[in-house]
Amino acid sequence: MKARLVDVAREAGVSPKTVSNYLNGYPFMSERTTERVRAAIDKLDYVPNQSARTLRTGKIGIIGVALPNLQAPYFGELAALLTEAAEQRGYTLLIDQTGGDLDRELRAVRGIGPQALDGLILSPLKLAAEDVSAARDAQPLVVLGEWTHPAGVPYVGVDNVAAARAATQHLLSLDRRRIAAIGTISDTPRGTWGVRITGYRDALTTAGLATDERLEPRVANFHFDQGASAMSRLLDLPERPDAVFCFSDMLAIGALSVLHRQGVRVPDDVAVMGWDDITQAQYAWPPLTSVRAQTDVVARTAVDYLLRQIDDQPIEQTDQYVDFEIVVRDSTIGRAA
Amino acid sequence: MKARLVDVAREAGVSPKTVSNYLNGYPFMSERTTERVRAAIDKLDYVPNQSARTLRTGKIGIIGVALPNLQAPYFGELAALLTEAAEQRGYTLLIDQTGGDLDRELRAVRGIGPQALDGLILSPLKLAAEDVSAARDAQPLVVLGEWTHPAGVPYVGVDNVAAARAATQHLLSLDRRRIAAIGTISDTPRGTWGVRITGYRDALTTAGLATDERLEPRVANFHFDQGASAMSRLLDLPERPDAVFCFSDMLAIGALSVLHRQGVRVPDDVAVMGWDDITQAQYAWPPLTSVRAQTDVVARTAVDYLLRQIDDQPIEQTDQYVDFEIVVRDSTIGRAA
Repeated sequence: MKARLVDVAREAGVSPKTVSNYLNGYPFMSERTTERVRAAIDKLDYVPNQSARTLRTGKIGIIGVALPNLQAPYFGELAALLTEAAEQRGYTLLIDQTGGDLDRELRAVRGIGPQALDGLILSPLKLAAEDVSAARDAQPLVVLGEWTHPAGVPYVGVDNVAAARAATQHLLSLDRRRIAAIGTISDTPRGTWGVRITGYRDALTTAGLATDERLEPRVANFHFDQGASAMSRLLDLPERPDAVFCFSDMLAIGALSVLHRQGVRVPDDVAVMGWDDITQAQYAWPPLTSVRAQTDVVARTAVDYLLRQIDDQPIEQTDQYVDFEIVVRDSTIGRAA
Repeated sequence: MKARLVDVAREAGVSPKTVSNYLNGYPFMSERTTERVRAAIDKLDYVPNQSARTLRTGKIGIIGVALPNLQAPYFGELAALLTEAAEQRGYTLLIDQTGGDLDRELRAVRGIGPQALDGLILSPLKLAAEDVSAARDAQPLVVLGEWTHPAGVPYVGVDNVAAARAATQHLLSLDRRRIAAIGTISDTPRGTWGVRITGYRDALTTAGLATDERLEPRVANFHFDQGASAMSRLLDLPERPDAVFCFSDMLAIGALSVLHRQGVRVPDDVAVMGWDDITQAQYAWPPLTSVRAQTDVVARTAVDYLLRQIDDQPIEQTDQYVDFEIVVRDSTIGRAA
């Protein structure tokens, strides 16, 4: 016979209300009680009646996150942290991969399926602020990333101009004077690369150095192959750079592979740094200096802002900027590879 | 005023039935018609009435995939391919990240939320065959991975014993005789590492070589740090290995970082190979030899098997094994790093 909620309560030695709180992800519950309820659910093989829960609360206990691309390790790590943060608040997180495609971003922001999700965390690449404004009544919404979001939509991100300035200053502090930036995507600075190139140019100008378009090679995106081809073009210049600031660790790892192949010493001849501090930055050769944002704080704050909207609770400050640091490793200061 | 389905049909110059077919992901539609309907939907900013669709077909157009860990690039790449395959069939794919946690795998297999998904593709780490048998009535199901799945549940995978044998034979063909395997997790061969160690031992035995437990160091999982620590232990052996077969590219990249740090030449002193052929295998230093399965075929077949179940269509062969190849790069045959 199928176990009921009261059976779980009896087995765990708690009230049915406590079991119900557990199932609804009520946050203020002792670890001991949580453990007992979980053990009872396991033992009795109890499956909560989700339909009843939906009717009672009007919520289904599922939130979504729309991310551009899970092939990029940064988004894989972000997805893991968001899943954990949602889980801690009693929600299941489902991930919608948009491929940075406008159609799919639009579909996500307008609501995936009939009441499939209670709300959405969105990390858009193509969506304009107007699209988000227009769709924000469809469901509770939080926006991530480097992006001109509409006023009133809760946002969590990093001050990218300041972080890019700090990254460039790190290279300047090592007496590098011909510092290239890999990450320029088009003529008009916009989105992620736009704020990062602004910070990079700021730092050069402040240090009394001229910016030089030849040191800002174009890429199509932030992936390995683009870092490799941009680095090849930089090595073909009559005067090579002595440092490269890459706008993602993937670009930097691609650049490193070309430097190794051509026998260029890192960091002696060319210092290399990335952005994101993905796990493999530590396992690159040489280990990669990188810009690290507090991605765990981004994840927890985004989930909190979304659940507050779902529960009709206020959000004091809707634009939240988290801290960053420059994690220094061998690729800029260490022994040569 | 909100555009209706008939408005889209008029704009595209097709019948309303054709638009409906498009929205329901009917596969037999010319690219030209598909393009016209899509353009009309874009132009009129048409949002399909999902609730009506659900009532009509009993389906919501969303399928799920439960994956252990998106921080592992292999699963990120698989998620991208599955998203694409689902999209091509007119379905949205949502990803549930289980963390390889038994509770979350159980919850996924029993159905996420009230009718939130039409079906599930499951890549389990912890789930027993009985759990899947018991839950298979909850929703249409397809199983991926290296795993003893219950009879009658459609499965897509790779012959891991054969692939591990071929990988080891590649190292034997290069006259390596002291070949280590990084990936052993416990005493009892089970799951992914169990089938791979079996193939590795098979190849050694066939070549007349003894297996040696010291050459099979334990790891907790298939991540970078585990590859690094296992490699350190191998280098501490009185007689070092001359080759290492790692059961994931992440393990291999971790192993490479330790070899570099200790000044061991790859492949001259130690040849290194991985498994998965993730994108960064090409950008490792030296570029990494790896076992590559046809992951795109896995993704398309898994989606096809799931949609057949959803549409009550037959599946001729429920256990589908896709091909693999050994992608040979510098880490086993190339110039030294």
